[in-house]
Amino acid sequence: MPQLPITIDRNSGTPIHVQIVESFSNLIQNKELKPGERLLSMRDLARSLGVNRNTVGLAYTELESIGLVQTRVGSGTYVIEANQGRDVGRSLPPGGAGRGGERLEHALSRRTRQGDALAERLSGGDGDTARIELGGLIPDRELFPAEEFRLVLSDVVKEMGPVILDYGSREGYRPLRRWLAERLSGMCGEVEEENLFIVNGSQQGLDLVAKLLLDEGDTVVVEGPTYHNAIGVFRLYGANLRPVPLDGNGMRADMLGDILEGERVKLIYCMPTFQNPTGVTMPLERREEIVAAAARHGVPVLEDNFGADLRYSGDEQCALRSLRGGENGLLLGTFSKILFPGLRLGWLVLPSAFREPFRTIRAYTDLSAGQLVQAAIHRFCEMGYLDDHLEKVRRENGARLGAMTSAMETHFPEGVSWTVPDGGMSLWVTLPRGIDSMELLMDARREGVNFAPGVLFHAGGGGRNEFRLSFTVEKEERIAAGIAALGELLRRRIATRRAGEWRESDVLL
Amino acid sequence: MPQLPITIDRNSGTPIHVQIVESFSNLIQNKELKPGERLLSMRDLARSLGVNRNTVGLAYTELESIGLVQTRVGSGTYVIEANQGRDVGRSLPPGGAGRGGERLEHALSRRTRQGDALAERLSGGDGDTARIELGGLIPDRELFPAEEFRLVLSDVVKEMGPVILDYGSREGYRPLRRWLAERLSGMCGEVEEENLFIVNGSQQGLDLVAKLLLDEGDTVVVEGPTYHNAIGVFRLYGANLRPVPLDGNGMRADMLGDILEGERVKLIYCMPTFQNPTGVTMPLERREEIVAAAARHGVPVLEDNFGADLRYSGDEQCALRSLRGGENGLLLGTFSKILFPGLRLGWLVLPSAFREPFRTIRAYTDLSAGQLVQAAIHRFCEMGYLDDHLEKVRRENGARLGAMTSAMETHFPEGVSWTVPDGGMSLWVTLPRGIDSMELLMDARREGVNFAPGVLFHAGGGGRNEFRLSFTVEKEERIAAGIAALGELLRRRIATRRAGEWRESDVLL
Repeated sequence: MPQLPITIDRNSGTPIHVQIVESFSNLIQNKELKPGERLLSMRDLARSLGVNRNTVGLAYTELESIGLVQTRVGSGTYVIEANQGRDVGRSLPPGGAGRGGERLEHALSRRTRQGDALAERLSGGDGDTARIELGGLIPDRELFPAEEFRLVLSDVVKEMGPVILDYGSREGYRPLRRWLAERLSGMCGEVEEENLFIVNGSQQGLDLVAKLLLDEGDTVVVEGPTYHNAIGVFRLYGANLRPVPLDGNGMRADMLGDILEGERVKLIYCMPTFQNPTGVTMPLERREEIVAAAARHGVPVLEDNFGADLRYSGDEQCALRSLRGGENGLLLGTFSKILFPGLRLGWLVLPSAFREPFRTIRAYTDLSAGQLVQAAIHRFCEMGYLDDHLEKVRRENGARLGAMTSAMETHFPEGVSWTVPDGGMSLWVTLPRGIDSMELLMDARREGVNFAPGVLFHAGGGGRNEFRLSFTVEKEERIAAGIAALGELLRRRIATRRAGEWRESDVLL
Repeated sequence: MPQLPITIDRNSGTPIHVQIVESFSNLIQNKELKPGERLLSMRDLARSLGVNRNTVGLAYTELESIGLVQTRVGSGTYVIEANQGRDVGRSLPPGGAGRGGERLEHALSRRTRQGDALAERLSGGDGDTARIELGGLIPDRELFPAEEFRLVLSDVVKEMGPVILDYGSREGYRPLRRWLAERLSGMCGEVEEENLFIVNGSQQGLDLVAKLLLDEGDTVVVEGPTYHNAIGVFRLYGANLRPVPLDGNGMRADMLGDILEGERVKLIYCMPTFQNPTGVTMPLERREEIVAAAARHGVPVLEDNFGADLRYSGDEQCALRSLRGGENGLLLGTFSKILFPGLRLGWLVLPSAFREPFRTIRAYTDLSAGQLVQAAIHRFCEMGYLDDHLEKVRRENGARLGAMTSAMETHFPEGVSWTVPDGGMSLWVTLPRGIDSMELLMDARREGVNFAPGVLFHAGGGGRNEFRLSFTVEKEERIAAGIAALGELLRRRIATRRAGEWRESDVLL
């Protein structure tokens, strides 16, 4: 590989590793670096640039996570092959596939791939069970009542026979819809069975709502920060995202009002209870303000209620759609966080106006959710197993949250702050300005700890000094150990920063 | 209800009932007839127009099937309420939901609702088990090996425990992907496990391919006639459909070539084996021509292979992607037609170029298919139960097809022709010109027989003198009875037509 025209500006204020990432991105996009070509080894590049090898390591890791290069073990780092990257049209038969597909372009865009590749790491799904997983919003599978479910499944097939393996209805399995509608009614307002639809997890709920409502160029208000895969799905439908910052009471109603005043908004997406990622819950007054602002401008609110059943302290809160003016709200819920994520089952409550278009769109999307798992979940819930499980999960998660925050108080250095939620699965950490959670993550992963860096959750950029910690996957001891390790890394980073920014660029190898 | 300005032109050549449908459509769309308003009773309208009451009945039935009116039992026929119709924006809080959503508009458009409402009837899912169901492409659930599956399910949960109820991979359950890739390799070309993805039935496969490839205004070539829900999903993504007629050897390669020559096409969608709805299979030579034309213009072919395992006679055919030039083809398959539709499982083989974008799009769509059912299906297949079941299904379906065609030879009048497929689930009937299969369907449903009218399957209009008969739901005797009834109705219709078109409009009540 010839010498590359990468130059580093030590006085630019942009961190060195970010400069390296940007230089390589440009070289690859301009084809100065070709698919399959090998990058300089980290050692060689560090030497030639006169920077720390860890700085290059960080840059290469970011390049890999945004899908521009790949590391082959024992061989080096290579520019990703054309047929894994943007050049899909060209790898098709001669002539190309038309103009390449805006959606495809989008799916391959740097921003999308970055979000997705990073997000995937959070799932902890790479089989590294030794690692302390504080990244993903994942329930602890060791608590799953698998044996009870096995018996229920078996009973359902035995009793219902072939009919439950046959095509089901688009709306979902009726007894499950009825059960959910009854259960939700009250705190979630009046929920009519015919307006409650079973979806394949809340992610599909988001996709179907986007399909129903969004056109290219529409504006969607989201929380800043928000659920990273909501950013992904709304962008895939061509939406412009307008993040509204949170305070300790959730989405800022005054700023929402300003946005609604100033531009036409198609949808407001928010998580009023145990917000993902921050864990913040809106009190009643804030809920009323949000609903009033939305109603004033006639903008529907999609309320993601994923964690409503996971309260460990404080008082229950009404859903937005139960408040005056909120009746036309959309409500999303899921079994993935309270029972078995692998069944892919959630629910979506829609205003009756959407009932017919939803049915048509569902038919064209995938006909329906799977009937057997719906019938089994229904039986399981009806027999009281869900409530038994929830009781256990709440006790356990509450204890884990306590273990996490008390470890944080012990181990996290001054200047680091965090939310203390009343429920849900995660809390949100804010670092002193200048401490980068992506860098911390690289350190942490070397120490066997994973968390979710803040950049993932910000539709409008930012979040580099923030991160999300999930407290539901690991047991208390491992949470405490993970927090202790993070605390130690944070102390070191903060000390390094205090010793002066110059060190990173000046210390060679 | 005041007297309506409906006039009938007996000399226009347009059938009376079509004139009535069009008049009401206009009145409803112009708000001269308002939501909730009751239509004249069939008897009164027939009298005031001086037409046969059955003619009005037919018109009202069509109006209902396209979602403009609804019949309330014992009460009459009403214009559908605003909140079930197009006025979604207005039923939201004051101010409306922006410009209403092109997708939503589409989902509510007359054409979409007509297709979808009609299609839904075909599913036979209205619980009328007395009716002889020759409409839906549905396997006979009485053949389902439910007990074997129950045991497998139970074993899988017992052995794998909670892990199988936890989040799974986006690509699908690996052992199932491997099993399918091995099974398909050969007749379907080389199928690599890493390019085979599990989807929620082939309908979701279509949706994901559309999401990957299609932008508003793109052209998609389909067969004419084709699978009705493929028309729906491609249109939902804003595609223009270009139907290519079939002959006895499938999609006409010469006409495909002309289209590809004349305009930019983004995707070709076809079913070379036991095409839905016609049952026609492309011989090798036609396959080669189609693949060559597509390759010449660099247009990817999406091959829907739903029925490949359902052959009752004739020789197996290679998939298009196994032919020279077809390597970049997309291949879709499903368990719904050969095993349990209610599990919603299918597979999609993609060129490696699509692997990464597919993974991102899948994450944003619904994360993954359900893990448990994938693991259970895998175990079920691996134990040989699928092959046992297929053997039984092939024997049974082959006999039913034979029963259907021999009954048709006995009972269908001269001038009616039909395809005789080597496999699949349906055959295609062509009526003498002027005999309307929608009218026949109204007759047939009164006699307790259902089938799928041709208009459903034609993206470009047409098909009024065609219909699809499915031979897999009902047992031989009931098939024979249904065909005898249809034959009798056909005889009467043809005789009526021979006696002169004038009769319909001139005979009062």
